[in-house]
Amino acid sequence: MSAITRDRWRSNFSEWFDWIIGEAEVYDYGRYPVKGMGVWMPYGFQIRRRVLELVRELHDRRGHEEVLFPLLIPETLLRKESEHIRGFEDEVYWVTHGGLEPLDVKLALRPTSETNITYYESLWIKSYKQLPKKYYQIVSVFRFETKATRAMIRLREVTTFKEAHTVHDSFEDSERQVLEAIEIYRELFDALGIPYIISRRPEWDKFAGALYTIAFDTVMPDGRVMQIGTAHNLGQNFTKAFDFKIQLADGTLDYPWQTSYGVSDRVIATIIAIHGDDRGLVLPPLVAPVQVVVIPIPVGSEEERNAVLREARRVAEVLRGGGVRVNVDEREELRPGAKYYYWEARGVPVRVDVGLEEVKTGVLTVVRRDTLERYKVAREELVGFVLRLFDEITVNIKKRAWDYMTSSLRRAETMDEARRWAEEKRGILEMPWCSREECARRVEEELEVKTLGIVWPLESAEGLRCPVCGGQAVTWARYAKTY
Amino acid sequence: MSAITRDRWRSNFSEWFDWIIGEAEVYDYGRYPVKGMGVWMPYGFQIRRRVLELVRELHDRRGHEEVLFPLLIPETLLRKESEHIRGFEDEVYWVTHGGLEPLDVKLALRPTSETNITYYESLWIKSYKQLPKKYYQIVSVFRFETKATRAMIRLREVTTFKEAHTVHDSFEDSERQVLEAIEIYRELFDALGIPYIISRRPEWDKFAGALYTIAFDTVMPDGRVMQIGTAHNLGQNFTKAFDFKIQLADGTLDYPWQTSYGVSDRVIATIIAIHGDDRGLVLPPLVAPVQVVVIPIPVGSEEERNAVLREARRVAEVLRGGGVRVNVDEREELRPGAKYYYWEARGVPVRVDVGLEEVKTGVLTVVRRDTLERYKVAREELVGFVLRLFDEITVNIKKRAWDYMTSSLRRAETMDEARRWAEEKRGILEMPWCSREECARRVEEELEVKTLGIVWPLESAEGLRCPVCGGQAVTWARYAKTY
Repeated sequence: MSAITRDRWRSNFSEWFDWIIGEAEVYDYGRYPVKGMGVWMPYGFQIRRRVLELVRELHDRRGHEEVLFPLLIPETLLRKESEHIRGFEDEVYWVTHGGLEPLDVKLALRPTSETNITYYESLWIKSYKQLPKKYYQIVSVFRFETKATRAMIRLREVTTFKEAHTVHDSFEDSERQVLEAIEIYRELFDALGIPYIISRRPEWDKFAGALYTIAFDTVMPDGRVMQIGTAHNLGQNFTKAFDFKIQLADGTLDYPWQTSYGVSDRVIATIIAIHGDDRGLVLPPLVAPVQVVVIPIPVGSEEERNAVLREARRVAEVLRGGGVRVNVDEREELRPGAKYYYWEARGVPVRVDVGLEEVKTGVLTVVRRDTLERYKVAREELVGFVLRLFDEITVNIKKRAWDYMTSSLRRAETMDEARRWAEEKRGILEMPWCSREECARRVEEELEVKTLGIVWPLESAEGLRCPVCGGQAVTWARYAKTY
Repeated sequence: MSAITRDRWRSNFSEWFDWIIGEAEVYDYGRYPVKGMGVWMPYGFQIRRRVLELVRELHDRRGHEEVLFPLLIPETLLRKESEHIRGFEDEVYWVTHGGLEPLDVKLALRPTSETNITYYESLWIKSYKQLPKKYYQIVSVFRFETKATRAMIRLREVTTFKEAHTVHDSFEDSERQVLEAIEIYRELFDALGIPYIISRRPEWDKFAGALYTIAFDTVMPDGRVMQIGTAHNLGQNFTKAFDFKIQLADGTLDYPWQTSYGVSDRVIATIIAIHGDDRGLVLPPLVAPVQVVVIPIPVGSEEERNAVLREARRVAEVLRGGGVRVNVDEREELRPGAKYYYWEARGVPVRVDVGLEEVKTGVLTVVRRDTLERYKVAREELVGFVLRLFDEITVNIKKRAWDYMTSSLRRAETMDEARRWAEEKRGILEMPWCSREECARRVEEELEVKTLGIVWPLESAEGLRCPVCGGQAVTWARYAKTY
């Protein structure tokens, strides 16, 4: 009986990741003449499609409306909110020519869409009666990254950016919306078995133009931390910049309040990274393009081989009838072992082997991808068994991922402890914090980490001291080596 | 009993179109600081979503694989095929700066994706055994239009471009693929009730880089003709330009053959244009975001009004149980007449009115949008009735559209007849043609029309004379005033 190994996955994660997105034909990266851009290949596209169906479902159910705004944002619009443009101007791609002619006004490829969406909202929304209003779109965004780019994780064309934008008639309602955004992302990540930790980003790392930013982070197999979702309370910053006022219930005019929140390709990168092993992907059944692969094992006479093939197809039909996405691998040029390798790399949750033995006895061999355990299952019990197995796999890979995440959290109350943690620097370090930027910056410098922010919801560190300045600690701050 | 009118729709189509896409909240156009770009609003987005589901279904069923390629195409790639770049260089948007830095190589916003897709195909495909290969993507494309732009019809950001790209090991197989593309588009337009005529575009109007182009055109309510889909046999033009060779069955190496075919936002523009009337949209039930709207007519005592509301909700539940997309308009601030206006503009196929009378008798009032006919239907027969009505509406609006299309076709064998047609210039004129460009150009100039191309499949005009030069006619050519 084979057991899974995660040696390569763990010790050489970066190489493993580049290997598997190519091997499983998820995303072709690194071969385009422009850095930071790649291709969603057919198999990867189908994973992406199912993740997006889930994203849509979670937003639609809570009254979000899907829309599509222009990609090109004229410089005049992008510059309206001064913090915002300051945050983005170094990393915006500019269109300057149409054909051979220079354009009158430069056009930015959207890095995000607060500006042009606020522009339209100011045309559409006149009264509190229309509020709250929740829009979202799923689009490409562009950032001229100067850091090293990385497939699906740090791209110049982020091909999958779900950005939600909401409008409210009071600060309180915008605060409620931030909570709803957090709830949506919790539900999304929970459904995909992705563990996360929620922090309020420090002032110096919030979204450009926001009052504050709440972020979801996860720990990758190499121990570095990756941001996988953010939610911002934008306050009235953009509505003021666009002179966008509405009528309130009391008859007065005022600027409405906004929030925005986004997730990206990184959700899919995380599914790949967090659940994988040395053999390749391990996909949650919910988003697996193929949930069960049936492998006919052809031996014996032609008649016997045909009987095996017929049985394999019948098994597939039965599973299909149960609503399962199933594929029979009938390729003649490949031996069963090569097929196992192929579908294991692609992370198909369940494999069913059909050989002469199975035809004769009516008992099938079922193998689950996450643990590689094998089962003998009677043909007539197959559908129920497989559906239960999907649930088990979903629970198991989620638990495994959370165990890793939880084990990656450390608390330290002194700089000495922190320094010991820093020798390995895997996962997240939490330390009491006095809330002064200076002290967090000192930690960043000395340990060569970044401040993720403070624990959310806020957790008091009363009675503890800031390990840097020795002052009264207010709360816990988080640090990590990040992507 | 009210009957539909199509006066404004017919005589002032352009104004009607601009009005209805705003009134029905389909597409916000003309208010963005950049010309030729607009916004898919929530209601329009839902129509678009359903059209795209159909597009995907038709491609997937025939073995096409959905993918996503980069938006930005470096100038070096775009220039590889010389005819292609010549066709597009005047209308490409160029990204020249990342942040404040000039880029080494200019990047084009894709006007179409033959070049970067062929680049990747050359990496992925090595043998005839992998063929045929059929990819498609649904993306935004950009063209710096110098002609007058128009909502959903002539845009600078075409937000909905389905482009399919295929690879074949022989010319014959690429020809078969062009036929499959035509079959897909026939099925698409048939399902949406959109009438069309198929022409082979003249040499001087084929896709830049293609051997030839087959186009679907339709006649708009103003009598002008609009291209709604094209299929190109690309021959070996791009594979040669990219030095993309494969191994053939006989062991030799050769350049494979390609086709590409596309449809755009114009499919949705056509649904709106072709089926509409003076009251607004008339949507095919297949793509209507709301298929039935239930309007409670509140009169009498509070108890009676509550009974009406309860009955309206019950009716909606029953319809939902039958798989119908249904909405109850419970807005208290609007009178029933205002609600009728609202939902008629949005083209909801069927309306059900529920008043006190209906509550008492159990007989509901059903109104169909396409003819505005009313029916009395017993509550227990409602679901079956409505589902049959969907079919009837689908058939009726399709027939109405085809009748108009058919009546818009004229044949002429002499220039005198052609000149008489040209006084009105509505629809399409067919004339015998000797196949010399010169003669078609003479017709274009004299009648101020464009050559759509020749009748496809080819129809002989043997025995007839070219009305321009008097020479032997080979086939029929088509002319029209176009969008």
